[in-house]
Amino acid sequence: MENYKKIIKDIYLEVKNLPDTGTLANYIPELALIDARNFGIHITNTDKLSFGIGDFDKKFSIQSISKLLSLALAYKLEGEKLWERVDVEPSGNPFNSFLQLETDSGKPRNPFINSGAIVVCDVLLSHLKNPKEDFLNFCREISKNPSLNYNEKVAQSEKDTGFRNIAICNLIKSFDNIKNEVAAVIDFYFHICSLEMSCKELSEIFLFLADDDFTTPKGNSILTRSQAKRINAIMLTCGFYDESGEFAFRVGLPGKSGVGGGIVAIHPDKYCIAVWSPKLNEQSNSYKGMLFLEKFTTRTASSIF
Amino acid sequence: MENYKKIIKDIYLEVKNLPDTGTLANYIPELALIDARNFGIHITNTDKLSFGIGDFDKKFSIQSISKLLSLALAYKLEGEKLWERVDVEPSGNPFNSFLQLETDSGKPRNPFINSGAIVVCDVLLSHLKNPKEDFLNFCREISKNPSLNYNEKVAQSEKDTGFRNIAICNLIKSFDNIKNEVAAVIDFYFHICSLEMSCKELSEIFLFLADDDFTTPKGNSILTRSQAKRINAIMLTCGFYDESGEFAFRVGLPGKSGVGGGIVAIHPDKYCIAVWSPKLNEQSNSYKGMLFLEKFTTRTASSIF
Amino acid sequence: MENYKKIIKDIYLEVKNLPDTGTLANYIPELALIDARNFGIHITNTDKLSFGIGDFDKKFSIQSISKLLSLALAYKLEGEKLWERVDVEPSGNPFNSFLQLETDSGKPRNPFINSGAIVVCDVLLSHLKNPKEDFLNFCREISKNPSLNYNEKVAQSEKDTGFRNIAICNLIKSFDNIKNEVAAVIDFYFHICSLEMSCKELSEIFLFLADDDFTTPKGNSILTRSQAKRINAIMLTCGFYDESGEFAFRVGLPGKSGVGGGIVAIHPDKYCIAVWSPKLNEQSNSYKGMLFLEKFTTRTASSIF
Amino acid sequence: MENYKKIIKDIYLEVKNLPDTGTLANYIPELALIDARNFGIHITNTDKLSFGIGDFDKKFSIQSISKLLSLALAYKLEGEKLWERVDVEPSGNPFNSFLQLETDSGKPRNPFINSGAIVVCDVLLSHLKNPKEDFLNFCREISKNPSLNYNEKVAQSEKDTGFRNIAICNLIKSFDNIKNEVAAVIDFYFHICSLEMSCKELSEIFLFLADDDFTTPKGNSILTRSQAKRINAIMLTCGFYDESGEFAFRVGLPGKSGVGGGIVAIHPDKYCIAVWSPKLNEQSNSYKGMLFLEKFTTRTASSIF
Repeated sequence: MENYKKIIKDIYLEVKNLPDTGTLANYIPELALIDARNFGIHITNTDKLSFGIGDFDKKFSIQSISKLLSLALAYKLEGEKLWERVDVEPSGNPFNSFLQLETDSGKPRNPFINSGAIVVCDVLLSHLKNPKEDFLNFCREISKNPSLNYNEKVAQSEKDTGFRNIAICNLIKSFDNIKNEVAAVIDFYFHICSLEMSCKELSEIFLFLADDDFTTPKGNSILTRSQAKRINAIMLTCGFYDESGEFAFRVGLPGKSGVGGGIVAIHPDKYCIAVWSPKLNEQSNSYKGMLFLEKFTTRTASSIF
Repeated sequence: MENYKKIIKDIYLEVKNLPDTGTLANYIPELALIDARNFGIHITNTDKLSFGIGDFDKKFSIQSISKLLSLALAYKLEGEKLWERVDVEPSGNPFNSFLQLETDSGKPRNPFINSGAIVVCDVLLSHLKNPKEDFLNFCREISKNPSLNYNEKVAQSEKDTGFRNIAICNLIKSFDNIKNEVAAVIDFYFHICSLEMSCKELSEIFLFLADDDFTTPKGNSILTRSQAKRINAIMLTCGFYDESGEFAFRVGLPGKSGVGGGIVAIHPDKYCIAVWSPKLNEQSNSYKGMLFLEKFTTRTASSIF
Repeated sequence: MENYKKIIKDIYLEVKNLPDTGTLANYIPELALIDARNFGIHITNTDKLSFGIGDFDKKFSIQSISKLLSLALAYKLEGEKLWERVDVEPSGNPFNSFLQLETDSGKPRNPFINSGAIVVCDVLLSHLKNPKEDFLNFCREISKNPSLNYNEKVAQSEKDTGFRNIAICNLIKSFDNIKNEVAAVIDFYFHICSLEMSCKELSEIFLFLADDDFTTPKGNSILTRSQAKRINAIMLTCGFYDESGEFAFRVGLPGKSGVGGGIVAIHPDKYCIAVWSPKLNEQSNSYKGMLFLEKFTTRTASSIF
Repeated sequence: MENYKKIIKDIYLEVKNLPDTGTLANYIPELALIDARNFGIHITNTDKLSFGIGDFDKKFSIQSISKLLSLALAYKLEGEKLWERVDVEPSGNPFNSFLQLETDSGKPRNPFINSGAIVVCDVLLSHLKNPKEDFLNFCREISKNPSLNYNEKVAQSEKDTGFRNIAICNLIKSFDNIKNEVAAVIDFYFHICSLEMSCKELSEIFLFLADDDFTTPKGNSILTRSQAKRINAIMLTCGFYDESGEFAFRVGLPGKSGVGGGIVAIHPDKYCIAVWSPKLNEQSNSYKGMLFLEKFTTRTASSIF
């Protein structure tokens, strides 16, 4: 960790002062209000050593990073049958999203694009008694962090403008791959997206994907070793929309981004790192977050390739 | 290696006798004549220890696996400028191939789909004096294997029926991303696809992707460490057409398949393994080859995730 | 008309006894209950002479034929500005429907595909105080037929299964080309589709498209001559989904079909003819209806070409 | 005709002096050299009366208008079997051209898009001994005009840059819907496109589509009455690429345009009119040509609707 600290500090300072050419997510009004200068990093390794710098302790909207949590819980509850409902292939082009749902008969290409995460929410709704509460408890348990919560304002903000997601959910339902009411699925989906965490919390909650021996305080493992590896594999091929190949190419780690400007990346058996910088590049991934991680894996020679 | 030998033998025996539900590639008449019962495996590790079983020493048509070799040479010659001509993103759906070329203005999504490999051939044509000969010499040098050769009959067989590839090449040229004559590019492309190697030769020639310290007999390295890592990353996200996600999910290694029934997979810093079984699944990847590798990484716990 | 009567009778007898290779629309449960043997024809000419045969006086669900009525009223109320919201081009392939909405930024290709008719409903909602009532009154006035009505059961049946249409409406709203609430637009749309008429009523209500001098009982014209011609033109290019070219080719008249098995066709300045036979061909147009009309325009030499 | 003369003169003067916002076709170098100020009109009615104004007697490259002539000859030679090779449906969006060929297994949507016209050329090659000569003789016979000829420079110019058309031809051949050598088909296709005619010649040669009793000087009819009507129907639904609906909507006649700036329109049983103005709108149809025809059918009330 000592070695990493020095490298992280150096890159933090280099990247912090770079001009930030990205733009804030503006389709969710609440997100457009964030101070674009926020920049934080936090790493936690499998020995529980950790280090943070910058705004690593401020909570922000983790948005699509939450798709990892809903996927983990659905995979735990549904097992391998989950993959009958959603595939594990990269999707190519956002532009094709509806075309693919039609040619693939309503089976989303992977759980990290919106269509796939919506199906995952539908799976959870069929398992959970009090979905929003139960999901939150799951997150609190694995992170040992009772303060985790939804941001109701953000959830509402998405509901008011999320016509595209509602369209996707209805199209999937027309293929019978949504089993619950569209309104309930979408409400759950928008709540999950509205989860708020800091970089520190992110790097801790996702340790179960890096650490084969991870258990909750109650001694439960979240996923089997094979399941965790498989989620890492899907992250690597599908975690960054149509920039997944670029992230694998430049950074070389399984990772997941959100339009709130957060990115989480995993080095199996080593560490989980989280970065936050709100301005996004054209593919809706954090501009400085990508840059930081590329420099980080290069200098630490810790790409998985 | 001793540990691996036992596991390879066990899985070899298990898989060999399984019913083989795939089909031979039939669009290239020459390939349809192969004995479908061939089944071989060969592994070589970074310490140069190796082990083979079954038909590991028989040459077969490596087809798209050769895209790795043309990419390596083009990357070496052209450097990072190569990525202005071809992207590094998974392509989603074969079905979309022409649609993507149009929406992406003739820039193929990655070097492992036909359109991308054709652009790579065009790049090589601009660099090499005697393209077919020079490319062969490159392959012979890194494999220390002067017997490597094209199969002219297979190359001719593809030319007689490869209208789809000729269509792709012309469409890209209409966007000005092919600089040489279409006929020359296509002739070169079909020759490269017709290369023949055994599993043993494959696991040796691609060691430069697993071994950071790899040098040719003359002491030259093929690629920089960063370049080798990047090719591994592209293999992981794009090496198996629209089954790339599935291979990452089930096997968890960078790999590349060919319609001749061969698969090569790399474990960075550890080994290169090649499998051959001619019958293909619906995504045109070797049915038994996929199965073998899934069992192999599971039992050796050697997925990169 | 006398000449036509003989020809209609002859073709009616020929076609009635032909095996009917089509299938009933089954995605709307109510429609699947119709007696498939119904077969009726009714013609009304611009001199108000008329003739009917078979089940020409039975009401059935006119479904998409109603898109002609909503278009006529929206065109009347909105004028040429209507075409800023919906285009007048054939759509090619149903398969592309969502793809086209995305590439065309939410502007439907024409008012006769579902997406276009949904935008037309939205335009009407912005003009009408009591949309369902006002629209019904419009239909009753031009047909002098106070008995016209919605079938609430059919409307409800569509609402329960119409997820694809709800998806379309939400996708268009995400492009801001739906101004009212999705639920209100869809409810209105499904009611309009549920209108019931007989062949006789259909051939009378659409006379305003054939007859330049058409006025309502109160002496009002519905559309200008130019507007009526333009609706006829759109019918010819777009009235039969992806079989519009085939209908123009074989029948040679502007026309509009519905999945209830009805077809209306117009010969400008001459007549309006309506046919009903519930079994549909693969493009969801009445199998016997198409056949009847092809024979009819051939024998009467009354194609517009 | 006297009535038409006055109207044509008036509109000619109105439109001639309008600013011309279009652009010259520039993808064929030869066409970019044309004087953009050329503007001519010529009408010939079924009584053989005719009238021309402006540059009606200058020859220009008729380009895609020639697709009407190749279609007529192929329909004559092949009969209704022709439609097994090419469909009669509008294509929607040029953007989709390759996508549609793939989803429709190499059967082009209609004979007026490039893919369809290429298949029509292939059909002709299978029928004609000396294709280029025989086709020219056919054109000369029906027009009684021995001076008609190809422009070899334009044909060569297209061959040098027509990679997209060569791509289309190869893609269709991969589906086995091209029976002859690609090079021969494409050479024939580019020659046909290079035909040169004046407005006068165009309005005379296509009279066979307007006049049911048309015969050649030798007393031969070109097509049956039904075949001529069907070609008119395809022209109306497909004659202007993705502006076919717009032309039907605004002009209301079957017509066919070419990127040389020519447009031919037919009023069945009445007349054939040709307009030429080289600058094209965004859909590659003559800007002033469209405008002239819209005003012409409006003032003469001679739309077919």
